[in-house]
Amino acid sequence: MSIFEQHESGVRSYSRRWPVVFSRATGSRLHTEDGRRWLDYFAGAGSLNYGHNNPVLKRALLDYVENDGITNALDMFTSARRDLLETLVEVVLRPRSMDHKVVFPGPGGANAVEAALKLARTVTGRSGVVHFTNSFHGATLGALAVTGNPLHRRSAGVPLTGATPMPFDGHDEHPHPEHLARLLAGPGSGLDLPAAVIVETVQAEGGMNVASTEWLRALAELCRQHEILLIVDDVQVGCGRTGPFFSFEDAGIVPDLICLSKSIGGYGLPLALLLVRPDLDVWPPGAHSGTFRGVNPAFVTATEALRTYWRDDTLEKSTRARGEWVGTALQGIVNAHPGAGLSTRGRGLVHGLVVGAELADAVSDEAFAQGLLVETSGPRDEVVKLLPPLTVSDAELAEGLAILEESVRVVLERAA
Amino acid sequence: MSIFEQHESGVRSYSRRWPVVFSRATGSRLHTEDGRRWLDYFAGAGSLNYGHNNPVLKRALLDYVENDGITNALDMFTSARRDLLETLVEVVLRPRSMDHKVVFPGPGGANAVEAALKLARTVTGRSGVVHFTNSFHGATLGALAVTGNPLHRRSAGVPLTGATPMPFDGHDEHPHPEHLARLLAGPGSGLDLPAAVIVETVQAEGGMNVASTEWLRALAELCRQHEILLIVDDVQVGCGRTGPFFSFEDAGIVPDLICLSKSIGGYGLPLALLLVRPDLDVWPPGAHSGTFRGVNPAFVTATEALRTYWRDDTLEKSTRARGEWVGTALQGIVNAHPGAGLSTRGRGLVHGLVVGAELADAVSDEAFAQGLLVETSGPRDEVVKLLPPLTVSDAELAEGLAILEESVRVVLERAA
Amino acid sequence: MSIFEQHESGVRSYSRRWPVVFSRATGSRLHTEDGRRWLDYFAGAGSLNYGHNNPVLKRALLDYVENDGITNALDMFTSARRDLLETLVEVVLRPRSMDHKVVFPGPGGANAVEAALKLARTVTGRSGVVHFTNSFHGATLGALAVTGNPLHRRSAGVPLTGATPMPFDGHDEHPHPEHLARLLAGPGSGLDLPAAVIVETVQAEGGMNVASTEWLRALAELCRQHEILLIVDDVQVGCGRTGPFFSFEDAGIVPDLICLSKSIGGYGLPLALLLVRPDLDVWPPGAHSGTFRGVNPAFVTATEALRTYWRDDTLEKSTRARGEWVGTALQGIVNAHPGAGLSTRGRGLVHGLVVGAELADAVSDEAFAQGLLVETSGPRDEVVKLLPPLTVSDAELAEGLAILEESVRVVLERAA
Amino acid sequence: MSIFEQHESGVRSYSRRWPVVFSRATGSRLHTEDGRRWLDYFAGAGSLNYGHNNPVLKRALLDYVENDGITNALDMFTSARRDLLETLVEVVLRPRSMDHKVVFPGPGGANAVEAALKLARTVTGRSGVVHFTNSFHGATLGALAVTGNPLHRRSAGVPLTGATPMPFDGHDEHPHPEHLARLLAGPGSGLDLPAAVIVETVQAEGGMNVASTEWLRALAELCRQHEILLIVDDVQVGCGRTGPFFSFEDAGIVPDLICLSKSIGGYGLPLALLLVRPDLDVWPPGAHSGTFRGVNPAFVTATEALRTYWRDDTLEKSTRARGEWVGTALQGIVNAHPGAGLSTRGRGLVHGLVVGAELADAVSDEAFAQGLLVETSGPRDEVVKLLPPLTVSDAELAEGLAILEESVRVVLERAA
Repeated sequence: MSIFEQHESGVRSYSRRWPVVFSRATGSRLHTEDGRRWLDYFAGAGSLNYGHNNPVLKRALLDYVENDGITNALDMFTSARRDLLETLVEVVLRPRSMDHKVVFPGPGGANAVEAALKLARTVTGRSGVVHFTNSFHGATLGALAVTGNPLHRRSAGVPLTGATPMPFDGHDEHPHPEHLARLLAGPGSGLDLPAAVIVETVQAEGGMNVASTEWLRALAELCRQHEILLIVDDVQVGCGRTGPFFSFEDAGIVPDLICLSKSIGGYGLPLALLLVRPDLDVWPPGAHSGTFRGVNPAFVTATEALRTYWRDDTLEKSTRARGEWVGTALQGIVNAHPGAGLSTRGRGLVHGLVVGAELADAVSDEAFAQGLLVETSGPRDEVVKLLPPLTVSDAELAEGLAILEESVRVVLERAA
Repeated sequence: MSIFEQHESGVRSYSRRWPVVFSRATGSRLHTEDGRRWLDYFAGAGSLNYGHNNPVLKRALLDYVENDGITNALDMFTSARRDLLETLVEVVLRPRSMDHKVVFPGPGGANAVEAALKLARTVTGRSGVVHFTNSFHGATLGALAVTGNPLHRRSAGVPLTGATPMPFDGHDEHPHPEHLARLLAGPGSGLDLPAAVIVETVQAEGGMNVASTEWLRALAELCRQHEILLIVDDVQVGCGRTGPFFSFEDAGIVPDLICLSKSIGGYGLPLALLLVRPDLDVWPPGAHSGTFRGVNPAFVTATEALRTYWRDDTLEKSTRARGEWVGTALQGIVNAHPGAGLSTRGRGLVHGLVVGAELADAVSDEAFAQGLLVETSGPRDEVVKLLPPLTVSDAELAEGLAILEESVRVVLERAA
Repeated sequence: MSIFEQHESGVRSYSRRWPVVFSRATGSRLHTEDGRRWLDYFAGAGSLNYGHNNPVLKRALLDYVENDGITNALDMFTSARRDLLETLVEVVLRPRSMDHKVVFPGPGGANAVEAALKLARTVTGRSGVVHFTNSFHGATLGALAVTGNPLHRRSAGVPLTGATPMPFDGHDEHPHPEHLARLLAGPGSGLDLPAAVIVETVQAEGGMNVASTEWLRALAELCRQHEILLIVDDVQVGCGRTGPFFSFEDAGIVPDLICLSKSIGGYGLPLALLLVRPDLDVWPPGAHSGTFRGVNPAFVTATEALRTYWRDDTLEKSTRARGEWVGTALQGIVNAHPGAGLSTRGRGLVHGLVVGAELADAVSDEAFAQGLLVETSGPRDEVVKLLPPLTVSDAELAEGLAILEESVRVVLERAA
Repeated sequence: MSIFEQHESGVRSYSRRWPVVFSRATGSRLHTEDGRRWLDYFAGAGSLNYGHNNPVLKRALLDYVENDGITNALDMFTSARRDLLETLVEVVLRPRSMDHKVVFPGPGGANAVEAALKLARTVTGRSGVVHFTNSFHGATLGALAVTGNPLHRRSAGVPLTGATPMPFDGHDEHPHPEHLARLLAGPGSGLDLPAAVIVETVQAEGGMNVASTEWLRALAELCRQHEILLIVDDVQVGCGRTGPFFSFEDAGIVPDLICLSKSIGGYGLPLALLLVRPDLDVWPPGAHSGTFRGVNPAFVTATEALRTYWRDDTLEKSTRARGEWVGTALQGIVNAHPGAGLSTRGRGLVHGLVVGAELADAVSDEAFAQGLLVETSGPRDEVVKLLPPLTVSDAELAEGLAILEESVRVVLERAA
């Protein structure tokens, strides 16, 4: 491992939590060179909803490469791009009565966020954007400004401007974005009318905070009243993570701009999309560009994933059902340790077990020792974050939850 | 094609120049679904230096995928990441006596640029960055601020701050960054000491402007004197495009931060690297992050490309020789039309034929009609831009140059 | 008046409300050229707490000018500057156990605010400042950013950065800056730790909003806990306007930085002071400058005002007593029109009668017709603002309140 | 003096150069409490062009105060304001065929600059402003951004944005703003089209740098071509300092926006004006405000100064003649010390003797010891700055120049 220590930047992070060298991956498992394997409840931070090397997608990818399919074509027309657009429209947009235009903003989620912010500002002629406490939207300058994480913010090296943080859904009796509503209500608040509000329906990096459907509806209505564009960053919890394809479907809202990435590519290859309400599609040709807007192998696996998993509601129902299972199991862990101050939250297959800043690391480490990869999240890394592939088997789900239960028990015992 | 017109955003650009649907690619050729083929002197905007579906890289990629190699692992340790680091150190860094640390900043060139700007500001505690007229560094907010292109700048929707433009090498008798030197010379200039200078040694998007080795040396020396960090954005003209691996090698300078992307992945898959002088590697773990910092298939093809092409100087010599061939051929075209105001410039296999804003489009269109893809560049799109794969064959080079010569002749005749 | 219409900018404002040409002023009265006179409850927007041409101050000013006292000396030592410093220390600072250093930041309140913001940022190395809804701190770029008024903000012509608005005291059951406290409580809020909080204890421009002593104490304590500097902008409601010399004295807090202007000069001549906690006085010589930091005639009248009115508590007690009188009288007006939705608020001799956006203008106009100058304020100009000189006589107070009572009656009748 | 040391902020500056306590002033002389006197070639940094306590202005001021003239009336109509407007139009604007509107932006020069920048940005909808190396425009945030002085810039505590520095007239063979012209010439320069250019025709704080009439004309023409607003900051060198009333008259240009302050008040009382081309006067009522926009005693002395000195060209001619005298005398000093590297520059009664950073302080100190107040200026304080009142007598001019000559001699001898 000395090559990493000597030559890779000290900014590396996950390799510190899991200091082994992985080499292969299948389904919900990661394997090391020396033959050990781990159950993966991290799933590429949500970029591998369909599991590692999903055989259907793998076949499509191999076929494409073997036949000399185009790898990178920027925004040139290609068969693979056409197939993706057609499938996206047929499988995702049309059934939901959405007529959003598709921007290929660049390879990663931050590109989708940057494009959304730029376009919202261009369309409205306003500069400010409202974001929420504990948000995470990316590490490029525009995305950083709407991100809450202080470690990331500090690394910008300059004051971040053009963004105002507001409290995320606090699950009050009548959940609505009260503070934002008050600042928008009258003149003189000092908050210039923003171009947009950007929100994650579940803040996965921010601690698995789940916005209620009521709060999301109130937020969407507030935006509508004030002609503020609503951007939903569905990079981590879109693509079925919460059950339905988009995480905001249960709230019955339709955002003006939608950021997709991570699992949209299906196979873990870089891909991002920005969906734009048609009347907002005002950029002239070439106004936003980038080299990796035409990763055609990712188009191929993205298309195959849509066809395989989103033509009916099998996966959606399965994710909802498993989500309930996970929720129940986590509540069981909470209940098993009544004095330990544990709690749980989540939706679909994005769940967190809140154990406190001191213990979350220990639980993650113990789970790793027992064969399970689980990350921590939250402003103080106080939440154990469960993000299994949506294709996890029942046995793997039972196994992972058992390891987690045991890890919590061991850690709490040790701490006592 | 109506699917593109109906559902893709109007921001799409290259598909307007070349309105055909490509499906396959081999070497220096792109093929459409209906069996037509074009000679590709665009090469994925420099992301395909080793040609489309280069057989050596293709074999490595197929093997990796077939064997369930990991696709995305963020910054976890993997065999593929280790192989890339080892090969980069062995083949590229050590022979050049460079001990830069490697940051995996995200999947695209803009991620490398954003990371470089953030790190330079963090390390120096200063906020300003100097860039150059006609620069292009990316479409995310931080990279946009150091980009000259007005169409891109406008699409930010907010004033771009923290950057000051300076004239690029004007090829004066004694080339040096005179204006910058003057502003730095004394107190009171109004230019706060910048964190960094960011420069492309050849401005490919900006019109194929080539900085002389003298100017680059003077710039590096000026930075050294004032303790300003020198960032070379080698995203488009690194990876052998000008002959040597890094475009700045002939100038004998060693930048503090080096941005690589496009062809570093070898096969056209998204990958970017930021090379950092070791003492500047100050970020704590996780200070810069992103999902697609572990595109392992791209690590595999990147490693294979380094091993295949950079263990000796065969490719470098070939590129230099072909560069001279191209230069001579272009000068021949210039000479053939003495009154037309043509000129040429370039280095290695990045060359431009300056034909003026009115004619460049026409030449590109005529070449397309004759089977050659050539883009235009420059602030007024006045330059026909030649960027063939470095692996182009002699026959293909002769063919492309012939088409170009003929296209210029036809267009000038038509215009007369 | 055509000279004004033809040659003065259309930005002029008060002359539209009161379109007569004033020429002389005495005590609480303004006189026009044609011999009419008005009772002045505007008092130079609070710059004339001691009345127009206060005879004691006038004598001191005339003596000074007659004897060729220095007019402008920038920050050179002068007798007048020394006298002011000595008197300020003896009469104001020492009795309150304050050891603040005195900055002469320039001639107006905005200079004091700009200097406070600059110094707070310099000392802390942080860039953000928290301000409050409906705040007003000035029309220069730094002060504008912490001002709520949208007409003023828009006139900047650029996005205003470096400031975050928070709700002002909403007079909840347990008043404290809850939203700010929540954003500061943990990491990840997206609010970078601010350099300072800037607050007016009574927002006079913002609608005569009075912060409770509890809220101010909670705010000061919050700042102390987080090492955020507390700036009180006492430009309009300092210098005895609320009773005590500083408006924050009743709250028992001592701000880190205090902005004074308007009535600090005593006679209506431009003067501003910034009081700075000694350990924050870190600027090197000349780091903040300006031509009119030595308006010595204003030093003379400022000194005379301190000596005359602040050596004992006569004025303070009188202002408190009259404040109660005014409050009672305004409550009487409110009570006399039970269905009209009127209300009143204020402290000392800064009081507002809230009559709604439609009627406030009419009341002000009617009062003008009846011989009283009263301004409106508030985000919708919905508040009639009473700011009589502190030296107003009992008879003048009775007269003005009677005119106001009658004006409200007439206007409400007319509207009915 | 201990009161100053104990209670005034350490930011004080001039009192360090001249550590005596002044008490009275007449004409070109400042007197201390203990009866010593100095010849004043500092003249309140240009705010006392008509000398200290000029008897004509003093009489007008005393009459006004004695008769209970209004002191502060914000922007209400007053007789004194009308007189000033009428006189300004009659004596200054109409004879020069100027129909600029008059904004009363606040009490000091920085207010005029801030208002000009805000208005230029509002009118054009652009955010950037071009300024020049070694500029000085004020210490408020907007003005600071267009100021070159690094000590001042640093004290902002935040990165200064929205401004780009360009080289001031370098007195090349064909003087014109070449670098600015080049950046404006084509797309892609990275300099977004600026709202305005702000320039001092003589940079007094910046080292007495004199722009040639050719350069100013070329700058004005460049602005006209690109529809960039031209702001001349005539705060220090307007009001006759260079001979004509406006410093730009000899260049035959008419700026779009003109900032006046310092000597516009005549007597050293705070006053500032912004003159605005009529079609740029777009602000709605109240869009820019401030308490001290109606310093009526300053209106009175301003009016009297215009009437006394600008109804004919006596003062202009005198200033030009004396300017030549001073220039010749300074050249004589230069010539007397051939190896010392001295030089001189200036126009009218704003002149500098360039003696180098080490000696300028010593010369100023020696002059002080010999009874003459002269400041230093320039980025390294390398220039002895002569700014006598325009009303200086021949004898006083001879006396001051003799002291300066002797001071230089003594200092150079000592240094040798």
